[in-house]
Amino acid sequence: MRVLGIDPGITNTGYALVIEDGNSMSAGGHGTVKTSSSDEMSLRLDILYEGVKSALEEARPDVAAVEQLFFNVNVKTAMSVGQARGVIILACRHAGVPCEEYTPLEVKQAVAGSGGAPKEQVEFMVKALLGIGKEKGSSHAFDAYAIAICHLNSRRLRERLAGR
Amino acid sequence: MRVLGIDPGITNTGYALVIEDGNSMSAGGHGTVKTSSSDEMSLRLDILYEGVKSALEEARPDVAAVEQLFFNVNVKTAMSVGQARGVIILACRHAGVPCEEYTPLEVKQAVAGSGGAPKEQVEFMVKALLGIGKEKGSSHAFDAYAIAICHLNSRRLRERLAGR
Repeated sequence: MRVLGIDPGITNTGYALVIEDGNSMSAGGHGTVKTSSSDEMSLRLDILYEGVKSALEEARPDVAAVEQLFFNVNVKTAMSVGQARGVIILACRHAGVPCEEYTPLEVKQAVAGSGGAPKEQVEFMVKALLGIGKEKGSSHAFDAYAIAICHLNSRRLRERLAGR
Repeated sequence: MRVLGIDPGITNTGYALVIEDGNSMSAGGHGTVKTSSSDEMSLRLDILYEGVKSALEEARPDVAAVEQLFFNVNVKTAMSVGQARGVIILACRHAGVPCEEYTPLEVKQAVAGSGGAPKEQVEFMVKALLGIGKEKGSSHAFDAYAIAICHLNSRRLRERLAGR
């Protein structure tokens, strides 16, 4: 099972591939799609759409896991992230990859065992589970790894609860 | 000059073509792209993207005018409308049509002369300027006509202020 986690934003959209093999997980690479605030919105959204579509075509995931908007933001941020999410979800559909959505609370819960876990604890668990270090400037990709792990852990939990 | 006004929404996106010929404007037809809340988000966004792209290809506008989000909404609405706007702006870009954005205040100002004009007054002006009646169930398209008129009136005003 290959999962591409996506952390959406208009300026920086991080993505990261997690590969599950039996009971182990490994990091399959990551990247960030960047757009410039000096470009017009239609160009930025197109760069984001094409960048995510390319990442999906390269990573060939079985599923994409996209972070849902957190609700403790203002309306302007919500609109901006919403526009980014719109073209990202469309890129997943056009690439033929199903798309699941998780809230930040679900990500923390599934990765570190508590929805109230601080960022450092989530990072510690991502590093431990994947056996990777956090490079400088890779925070968006790191968040994307956490979202991909969230999908795999949530799926395992659902299967166990269903007695499979 | 042909302008396609677009009033974005995830459930209903209205669009309407206004044709300017010298000093007169006329209505060039309208429609609504509808999506069902029982469908998953990626399908709804794809229907919206394809619907707006088809409308642009049929209407062949010189420019599209899209309503900007109003800011007196909650974060959940902002995210939902943001996702719809994201794929609409992308559809404009993929159809090769430049996209201008106007706030509801700018639309009221440009159509009825006051940013505080009530909805009825804006509708009265749209009817008077285009010589059309408002059919039952056409409120999204009617808003789209207002946005297209806003673009043409704003443009005329800018040209006059520039002494052209």
